[in-house]
Amino acid sequence: MKKKVTLKQIARELDVSISTVSKSLRNSPEIGEETRLRVQAFAKFYHYKPNNIALSLKNRKTKTIGIIIPEIVHHFFSTVINGIERIANENGYSVIICLSDDSFDKEVLNMELLANGSIDGFIMSLSKETQQKKDFHHITEVINQGMPVVMFDRVTQDINCDKVIIDDELAAYEAVQSLIDKGRKNIALVTTVDYVSVGKLRTDGYTKALLENGLPFEENLIIKIENVDNCEIKIGKLLEDKAIDAVLAVNELFAVTIIKIANKMGLKVPDDVAVIAFTDGIISKYSTPTITTVSQNGIEMGNIAAKVLIERLEEVHNEKEFDEEEEEEIYKTVVIETHLIERESTQ
Amino acid sequence: MKKKVTLKQIARELDVSISTVSKSLRNSPEIGEETRLRVQAFAKFYHYKPNNIALSLKNRKTKTIGIIIPEIVHHFFSTVINGIERIANENGYSVIICLSDDSFDKEVLNMELLANGSIDGFIMSLSKETQQKKDFHHITEVINQGMPVVMFDRVTQDINCDKVIIDDELAAYEAVQSLIDKGRKNIALVTTVDYVSVGKLRTDGYTKALLENGLPFEENLIIKIENVDNCEIKIGKLLEDKAIDAVLAVNELFAVTIIKIANKMGLKVPDDVAVIAFTDGIISKYSTPTITTVSQNGIEMGNIAAKVLIERLEEVHNEKEFDEEEEEEIYKTVVIETHLIERESTQ
Repeated sequence: MKKKVTLKQIARELDVSISTVSKSLRNSPEIGEETRLRVQAFAKFYHYKPNNIALSLKNRKTKTIGIIIPEIVHHFFSTVINGIERIANENGYSVIICLSDDSFDKEVLNMELLANGSIDGFIMSLSKETQQKKDFHHITEVINQGMPVVMFDRVTQDINCDKVIIDDELAAYEAVQSLIDKGRKNIALVTTVDYVSVGKLRTDGYTKALLENGLPFEENLIIKIENVDNCEIKIGKLLEDKAIDAVLAVNELFAVTIIKIANKMGLKVPDDVAVIAFTDGIISKYSTPTITTVSQNGIEMGNIAAKVLIERLEEVHNEKEFDEEEEEEIYKTVVIETHLIERESTQ
Repeated sequence: MKKKVTLKQIARELDVSISTVSKSLRNSPEIGEETRLRVQAFAKFYHYKPNNIALSLKNRKTKTIGIIIPEIVHHFFSTVINGIERIANENGYSVIICLSDDSFDKEVLNMELLANGSIDGFIMSLSKETQQKKDFHHITEVINQGMPVVMFDRVTQDINCDKVIIDDELAAYEAVQSLIDKGRKNIALVTTVDYVSVGKLRTDGYTKALLENGLPFEENLIIKIENVDNCEIKIGKLLEDKAIDAVLAVNELFAVTIIKIANKMGLKVPDDVAVIAFTDGIISKYSTPTITTVSQNGIEMGNIAAKVLIERLEEVHNEKEFDEEEEEEIYKTVVIETHLIERESTQ
């Protein structure tokens, strides 16, 4: 049997991106004719076989769910996986996990790998790079071939599918409101870069709370951090220049780093600076002081994502449910409630 | 096409364990004749197909590595996975991860799932239950069919395959010796239950260091914890009754819990009680005081596990390397060096 050529090999041979190969094979008008024909000819010569999911679905169930997440050294994603595993196992499904490592190419390759007959459906959270590129053709393709996809946490409005999210804007709004209620007035936001969807929504919630309470909104109270390992100077400058009395951090690592830097500068937490972090994880519980967090309830998110996918799978295997007017599937977005876990860093 | 019956379904139908089904199908004398024949008849009737790995190996490479780990909310395993991913990707391999959730049955089912044509070889760390049961037939079976397996961290001497470990005994010995060098005399060990291989080795290293230094070894200085959530009383009693001046904890969570309890009791760390933890993770770096740890170097362990497996895979596809005298494959055990990262909890 001849070895199957993969998207990656075609891309390497022709010195084009994986996305270009994938789009050319679908005859996408986004790709120039010359490249398209070159890719198609190459693929044909080497017997490239695209996924034949629709076909495989008719014939068999794998009773396996594929998960694609951006990173694994991350308490939130780990707890979501545990939540998915529990419901999946209860319903007789196995679970296979792949990591995109926040890379667009790895996300595309992992989807190709898993969609090729190993699984019945996907539960996924988008990589940073995918959100930045706004290129979702690999997901559209899988869905068009009849394989259900459920997105969680890092989702996109550009794809029509089932989603499980928290209301990040509301959660940030409530966190900032709780700081204002405690008399804090100079509240900073330490966040990630904008192309991560949840980062943007949290910024909106932060801004809204300030404006509604008549507090001035200043661009330079928002710090965007790409890498936690070299953010000390930025944060130190923020605390020093701006007489900050509270910070909302979009993750635990930022929060614990802020506390460390504040301590070094002789500032007391929470007396001088109150701190709230998104994502209730292991660090917030064990750090000194313990950190007030927005609980994202990863287990619950995993449970619901698995339930939604399994419902969809059983439905696919029985009969597709169409909205008769529009001939489109009706997808749902489940919003998980968050709540503030008050700890020492704010009281 | 008829749906394939799985090990799990056969086990459920006949009300026997998965292990019994698997062994019966291999005609193992461990299983009584009546059960064996009943399982075989059932499997035949429902067209059960065992893995046909050897056959599939001859025909194609999947260029995919399967990882099976006990748990995912665990910094050490996450870093090992990152280490494996890096080397795998550099060599053109994809990675698929399954969790055993420390369950024997899930480990067996995951191996069956992945070995069925999705991957070329395994990198795995044994589940607690597998180590307890000492039932490794599922691994032997995969190896006998020609699929390479590399074990890391939680390994067993009962299986002949490539292994990547740290010298847990030596690491514990050196950690305890460093405490003794600092003048500590009443050193406790807070560990997990004995059937986890690394737990046993660390206990041996702890004991050896005490005895070699002429310190008395007392059984009740060793506390075995199954679940970190309800260990407070045990640890409190240890610190109170025994005038402990140092503790070696086999993981970060135990260590940070010991520090919390010591603080509550009015004991100062490190002045009254010094603490060293195994596994350098995120908590040790961010807790107050920061915690001295034995670095297990998960990234390095993952790198080497991937290198060893990939070497083995390329070899399988070329020609098997036999020791001509014994007609057995030569497997290697790579021992990763550990070192002590000194932080505030001991100085």
